Amino acid sequence: MVKHAKDCDDAHFAVQDTLYVIGGKWKMVILSILVRFGTKRFGELARLTGISARILSKELNELEQNKLISRKVCDTKPITVEYSATAYSKSLHEVINAMIKWGRNHKKKIREK
Amino acid sequence: MVKHAKDCDDAHFAVQDTLYVIGGKWKMVILSILVRFGTKRFGELARLTGISARILSKELNELEQNKLISRKVCDTKPITVEYSATAYSKSLHEVINAMIKWGRNHKKKIREK
Repeated sequence: MVKHAKDCDDAHFAVQDTLYVIGGKWKMVILSILVRFGTKRFGELARLTGISARILSKELNELEQNKLISRKVCDTKPITVEYSATAYSKSLHEVINAMIKWGRNHKKKIREK
Repeated sequence: MVKHAKDCDDAHFAVQDTLYVIGGKWKMVILSILVRFGTKRFGELARLTGISARILSKELNELEQNKLISRKVCDTKPITVEYSATAYSKSLHEVINAMIKWGRNHKKKIREK
């Protein structure tokens, strides 16, 4: 396959991978809470976001699998589980800043008639 | 609301807006074809992507509403409709490059055990 086309396909898959990891309605909501306000328990996250327990568990599991958050089981009665943003989550800084910038400009662009 | 918190919320909504516009399985597939290979007809896009006509119409409509692609009805028999990436779509350059970079690094990171 022409090297150029292969590079484009690799680039395309990299974009799809990024969108898969941070896309959807809730992942960035959860991550920004943990980055801004620090470690949170499951119950706190559920209250702060209003997400159902089933969906919150799925989103947290995927964020953990992608090493963006860490999970700690605390030996309390009842047992509590704490979630924190990992140092690796800071690697999203450039993507998030670019999306903030684009999103703000896009809002203005869309309002132009 | 404390100014800092308001800025964070604005930033958060800007990220959600960006993810809404470019997120999902197909939008970046369609846009990258139009950017890489130029103007395409509906049928060509359907063949190149394998997306069903119903979903392709929905994705093209949303991309057009967000001014990332333009649509031209050609006076042929039967009528044909052509789609092109707009100059504005180039504004996504920084977001896409940041996603390519992060996606590629993330692939390596996830393979590390």
